[in-house]
Amino acid sequence: MNRPFFKDDCFYMEHALAQAQKALKSDEVPIGAVVVCPKGKIISRGYNKVAQKGCQIEHAEMTAIKKACKKLGDWRLEGCWIYVTLEPCSMCFSFIKLSRMAGVVYGADSPLFGYHLDKDAGLRLYNRNALEIVRGVCEKRSVSLLKQFFKKKRNKG
Amino acid sequence: MNRPFFKDDCFYMEHALAQAQKALKSDEVPIGAVVVCPKGKIISRGYNKVAQKGCQIEHAEMTAIKKACKKLGDWRLEGCWIYVTLEPCSMCFSFIKLSRMAGVVYGADSPLFGYHLDKDAGLRLYNRNALEIVRGVCEKRSVSLLKQFFKKKRNKG
Repeated sequence: MNRPFFKDDCFYMEHALAQAQKALKSDEVPIGAVVVCPKGKIISRGYNKVAQKGCQIEHAEMTAIKKACKKLGDWRLEGCWIYVTLEPCSMCFSFIKLSRMAGVVYGADSPLFGYHLDKDAGLRLYNRNALEIVRGVCEKRSVSLLKQFFKKKRNKG
Repeated sequence: MNRPFFKDDCFYMEHALAQAQKALKSDEVPIGAVVVCPKGKIISRGYNKVAQKGCQIEHAEMTAIKKACKKLGDWRLEGCWIYVTLEPCSMCFSFIKLSRMAGVVYGADSPLFGYHLDKDAGLRLYNRNALEIVRGVCEKRSVSLLKQFFKKKRNKG
């Protein structure tokens, strides 16, 4: 994990959590993400907008990566990392791999939708380039946001 | 495979191939897709624009599904099918599953990037809802387009 210009993981996850808060305020499942360039700077942000925009392409990671590509003018995000509050699903995980990112840092595990569903089954999603994965960063705060959301939903229902 | 309102698979694949032709004209890897609603009507189209737009989110399937969601005003594309000239990658395959589509019909196999890489390893990508898969429709024409593209690239290089 060679990230000489990076601040610690909590610093970036704070920004991802701020994005998740935005989702929560919009009555969306609170998930947020930021992309960090090799020099350690946050270059893009995204939060879940699936309900609002009516499309599964609106996951936090998809938006953040799309914006990062636009900013750098390249689909190859070599050396970039993504910080996301929840374990990415297979779609987002594949997008991260396709975009040739260096690593993923995530907060809470996603037992029902996480990419590890496939990893457990022997994931080989574009594994020719190695992707580093760090889990459990600010996990409790991510889980707390999710719980807030689902509690509110249950009370409404 | 209950598709009572559908024309035959070649009919829809022709339209997907026409999209792939558009990609070829734009000097993109020629891949095209169309989404068909349960009544058998084509509701959206897409072709690969990764190089032009500089982002892997611009796969043919991603664009076609995104447009279909917009048209139907819902991220749930229940009963809809996607026709795509090349076997979807894991990102697109996951997006198809997340969007709760009924099935995929594809032309050529993609040994290097296809989702079956993961299927062979015991794919469990959101397999709670069954997704039907039909392969090899108009396969030769899809392969022929891809060969044209790569031949041109080699001659340039």
